[in-house]
Amino acid sequence: MSSLLFLEIRAQLVEQQKCLEQQTEMRVQLLQDLQDFFRKKAEIETEYSRNLEKLAERFMAKTRSTKDHQQYKKDQNLLSPVNCWYLLLNQVRRESKDHATLSDIYLNNVIMRFMQISEDSTRMFKKSKEIAFQLHEDLMKVLNELYTVMKTYHMYHAESISAESKLKEAEKQEEKQIGRSGDPVFHIRLEERHQRRSSVKKIEKMKEKRQAKYSENKLKSIKARNEYLLTLEATNASVFKYYIHDLSDLIDCCDLGYHASLNRALRTYLSAEYNLETSRHEGLDIIENAVDNLEPRSDKQRFMEMYPAAFCPPMKFEFQSHMGDEVSAQQPVQAELMLRYQQLQSRLATLKIENEEVKKTTEATLQTIQDMVTIEDYDVSECFQHSRSTESVKSTVSETYLSKPSIAKRRANQQETEQFYFMVGPCKCYCFSFHLHDI
Amino acid sequence: MSSLLFLEIRAQLVEQQKCLEQQTEMRVQLLQDLQDFFRKKAEIETEYSRNLEKLAERFMAKTRSTKDHQQYKKDQNLLSPVNCWYLLLNQVRRESKDHATLSDIYLNNVIMRFMQISEDSTRMFKKSKEIAFQLHEDLMKVLNELYTVMKTYHMYHAESISAESKLKEAEKQEEKQIGRSGDPVFHIRLEERHQRRSSVKKIEKMKEKRQAKYSENKLKSIKARNEYLLTLEATNASVFKYYIHDLSDLIDCCDLGYHASLNRALRTYLSAEYNLETSRHEGLDIIENAVDNLEPRSDKQRFMEMYPAAFCPPMKFEFQSHMGDEVSAQQPVQAELMLRYQQLQSRLATLKIENEEVKKTTEATLQTIQDMVTIEDYDVSECFQHSRSTESVKSTVSETYLSKPSIAKRRANQQETEQFYFMVGPCKCYCFSFHLHDI
Repeated sequence: MSSLLFLEIRAQLVEQQKCLEQQTEMRVQLLQDLQDFFRKKAEIETEYSRNLEKLAERFMAKTRSTKDHQQYKKDQNLLSPVNCWYLLLNQVRRESKDHATLSDIYLNNVIMRFMQISEDSTRMFKKSKEIAFQLHEDLMKVLNELYTVMKTYHMYHAESISAESKLKEAEKQEEKQIGRSGDPVFHIRLEERHQRRSSVKKIEKMKEKRQAKYSENKLKSIKARNEYLLTLEATNASVFKYYIHDLSDLIDCCDLGYHASLNRALRTYLSAEYNLETSRHEGLDIIENAVDNLEPRSDKQRFMEMYPAAFCPPMKFEFQSHMGDEVSAQQPVQAELMLRYQQLQSRLATLKIENEEVKKTTEATLQTIQDMVTIEDYDVSECFQHSRSTESVKSTVSETYLSKPSIAKRRANQQETEQFYFMVGPCKCYCFSFHLHDI
Repeated sequence: MSSLLFLEIRAQLVEQQKCLEQQTEMRVQLLQDLQDFFRKKAEIETEYSRNLEKLAERFMAKTRSTKDHQQYKKDQNLLSPVNCWYLLLNQVRRESKDHATLSDIYLNNVIMRFMQISEDSTRMFKKSKEIAFQLHEDLMKVLNELYTVMKTYHMYHAESISAESKLKEAEKQEEKQIGRSGDPVFHIRLEERHQRRSSVKKIEKMKEKRQAKYSENKLKSIKARNEYLLTLEATNASVFKYYIHDLSDLIDCCDLGYHASLNRALRTYLSAEYNLETSRHEGLDIIENAVDNLEPRSDKQRFMEMYPAAFCPPMKFEFQSHMGDEVSAQQPVQAELMLRYQQLQSRLATLKIENEEVKKTTEATLQTIQDMVTIEDYDVSECFQHSRSTESVKSTVSETYLSKPSIAKRRANQQETEQFYFMVGPCKCYCFSFHLHDI
């Protein structure tokens, strides 16, 4: 039974090595996958970056020639939509650069780290294998020793037992002799008596010899048994120590630095991704700021400044007197003038009222249009909801821009309002001064 | 001079229409560029998304077969590095989905908006053109009227002047006649006297006629001048109103809704980008969390549980007694045992001390190694610094992973420490129980 346990243990030790080897192989494989993965992703990022760069270049080149851009070079003062457009192109460039950087970090940093971790794991495994070999050697030594001392004990014990039985036998014979010598003396012959005495002596001697042999063997067996007991304890202690401490140490040897290095490699990846994100975010904030500054008033101002010849008001018309005739109302027509003046006064009053009406309607309609064109329908966050099974994402996308019919309806509605606005609106506002002549 | 001003104004009105037309053309062009830009970017995003999907699929398929994955399916309990690896693949998938969504939003939402804004701008320009036409018509009417009334005034004034001079001449003749009739009467013939009287009467009549003509013309000219002055004021008012208000209204008509709609279109783009970013960030946080949980202890536990047969400790070795021999120390060897016991005691003491020494050294060395493998060298933020001229970015990248020599040095250093660790470390710790037998 003991020897069976030996074999079991020996088998286990071999098995343990196998497991550690397998673990290392799995790690090396994982690290290989990680390298391949990041190599491929680096390619993808590079291609993405190139495409973005091309895109930006294409439109940059297109705009560089334009009048606006010359303006842009002179003073940074651009029409607000054009400004947004330039920042949009800048953002694409920025993204292009960042993804190139990402790819670069994958190749020159992350992948290198995984390579080194792979080397380290293999080296660590070798080390631990050496140590394991030593440990197993020594453990086997202990086990063999246990086996030997046990056998020795059993042997000596057997010997002492057989010696004991021989001794017992001798004692029996002796008793027999003593029993015979108890017969009545008168009817025994003289020479017969002499014979018996010598045989008793012989038995005495044999018994002593066996007694000595027995005690010697007995002592040997006791010592062997004590040695066995001691070795037993020692062995159990060693086996316990190996399984509870050394084995764990062995695994630690294989692990030495593995998790920490992996951690750093992955953190490098994370650092790169987070920084790409931050940079991207900064860029978007710049655009958002420009979008906040989309402003019709200032653009109108710029537009009119761009063409001063077209928009500066002409001089006032002056009175062209005819050969030294100077202005001064004259008696004969004063009454008539007064009448005319009153007519104009009343006409003016009604026009003022009419204009007020028009103004009100116009402003109301304009407000309606303003509300229509400033409706906040641009939040698309629901398209980026990731349920655990991200399958559900695609579906929502089609609905991101309000369903086609509803747009059509909204646009029709808007244009209708426009129509009305133009009917009541600006066409009326200027009628004022002309009506002076309708009288 | 006045008529010159007419021509100037008429030219300006034409120029103004040209400017507005040009502005609209520039807007339509810009909106076309924006559409092309987003169409191309959508393509790029789609391609990027496809590549990422392929990448994830490739490695997912590879891992799906593995033992780990079966484990993963059963209980989510994975070795921490494998868990990181799976989350890395999930992240790529997530990015793939998000960029597909982005592309979708560009095509089905953003571009559509730009198309509509372009339509609107053109429509608005047409409207404002109609209005402008009306405005110009009326303005011209006013100007022509001014021109006419001025001419009328000049004509009537001229007539009244000539009438006045004729009147003056008549008066002179009359005075001449009165002067002649003052001569001494006695030496004039009778019939001569009669002749003079009739010519005086004739002059009287003519003077009256001219007097009437003159007052009539004078009145006409005064009325004409008043009309002229009034029209002058009205015209200046109209011109002023057109240049200060109507012109601005015309531009507003062209702008109606332009900035607001552009704002919404660009905000849709921003919303998509920001949401992509958020989703990406969530994914990275999940990975970071898994990286925080890279843990040797629990992995060791899992590893040993995976192979119970190899790692469970064997049974204790029991005392194998020999045919009914029971354990009990016997007199004859007691003294000897005592001696042996004392020897072991002292040996044990020294071993304990030795082990303490080894432990100290080992732990110190291990700590050194730990410090080496946990050095925080993974921050790559400086690679993503964008100076205004983002040209400086690329350069830093090469230095992201500490320069090659310094790595080599660090790694050599680390392996040296390892060597030492393995020399003093685990190989010694187990010597304890074996030395029992060296006595």
